[in-house]
Amino acid sequence: MRAAFHVQLDELIIDLVRMTRLAGQMMTNAAIALHQRDLALAAVVIAKRDQMYAMHDDTEQRCIILLARRAPVAGDLRAVVAALRAVAHLKRMGNLARHVALIAQIKNPNPMTADEVRPVLARMSLLASQFAEDAAIVIERQDFGSGSQLVEADHEVDALRRHLFDILFAEDWSHGVEQAVDAALIGRYYERFADHAVAVATEARYLATRRMPEPYGLKTGGRLR
Amino acid sequence: MRAAFHVQLDELIIDLVRMTRLAGQMMTNAAIALHQRDLALAAVVIAKRDQMYAMHDDTEQRCIILLARRAPVAGDLRAVVAALRAVAHLKRMGNLARHVALIAQIKNPNPMTADEVRPVLARMSLLASQFAEDAAIVIERQDFGSGSQLVEADHEVDALRRHLFDILFAEDWSHGVEQAVDAALIGRYYERFADHAVAVATEARYLATRRMPEPYGLKTGGRLR
Repeated sequence: MRAAFHVQLDELIIDLVRMTRLAGQMMTNAAIALHQRDLALAAVVIAKRDQMYAMHDDTEQRCIILLARRAPVAGDLRAVVAALRAVAHLKRMGNLARHVALIAQIKNPNPMTADEVRPVLARMSLLASQFAEDAAIVIERQDFGSGSQLVEADHEVDALRRHLFDILFAEDWSHGVEQAVDAALIGRYYERFADHAVAVATEARYLATRRMPEPYGLKTGGRLR
Repeated sequence: MRAAFHVQLDELIIDLVRMTRLAGQMMTNAAIALHQRDLALAAVVIAKRDQMYAMHDDTEQRCIILLARRAPVAGDLRAVVAALRAVAHLKRMGNLARHVALIAQIKNPNPMTADEVRPVLARMSLLASQFAEDAAIVIERQDFGSGSQLVEADHEVDALRRHLFDILFAEDWSHGVEQAVDAALIGRYYERFADHAVAVATEARYLATRRMPEPYGLKTGGRLR
């Protein structure tokens, strides 16, 4: 019974890794679409959202079936609840990548044409995609070291967001209101995407509890936060 | 056993209603703080986030204990999973209200000083708060009629967001880049808050399944969406 549970939990974990990589790939492609004004690539990202939704619904449904059929307790239960929380974050990451792709598709000129913001937004997008890959590695290898690096790097995202706003609000900003608003929103989407990736990595430590059992109800301090 | 489960589920539902009303109150106060430049009120909203976090952690923990001790199945299980999803949305709503309060606190002049955007942002904030109250009523009275009105009103939020952007991007916008960016972000926070309120109302129909049982695993069409 318990062995069957862990086989199914391992399958869930594999799918969480797949979803995390899909989210990262969507955001990488959305940023390239924005940077290169590649409308075809933007369309690919926008279409991928359906795949993310399908994976979300399937994985969530399997979590619920696992709860119903196996009635897990203690660390096993916490692992399934963590998977439920993680899929919600991953769905949202797909939506945020789609928002960036939509701006790439709709806006011409887009904010990436402003020389001042291009390196800042490019760095933020790189970090966002890297965060997704790091979160995937944390889940896949149960390697929480990568998780702490992730939280460190999250400070860089915050600093970049502040730097972006300094540029947009400077007296010599010459690209008008629309490009400033778009750049601010894109920065916001990258920042939120990174936050969700950190949250996914944080959930990963509960997925590992079957190897490091803890009594349920015990409030543990965050290893990642 | 089953009766004890429903007593505990009813307690959870009461707390979800409380959290939903707290989120709505936070957003109402944040909007007033912004509108009236009331720094003391902004500080109240910012401080309330801790209360929301405490309620979130407590309610989520009780959902997990309910799963562990009662091992619910079918509609009962779906109700607990819905409560888990709802608390995540409510926590986020508290954060969004706090974002608005932070802008009220930091920014002077703030975007509400621009005559063109004031009515649009005021209407969006009113809808956001109203959505939270509607969601609370849906959960409290299991009244899904209010839920459908909510989805209808969600279209108005989208229309207001588009109207806001038209104003900000118009040639005669004379309040500069910073106020435009702030207005766009505030509009985004209201919109996200409203989205989460609709999501909370959507979860409410699963909370009612103990009165309208359905086999677990059955994919039902959304009554609200």
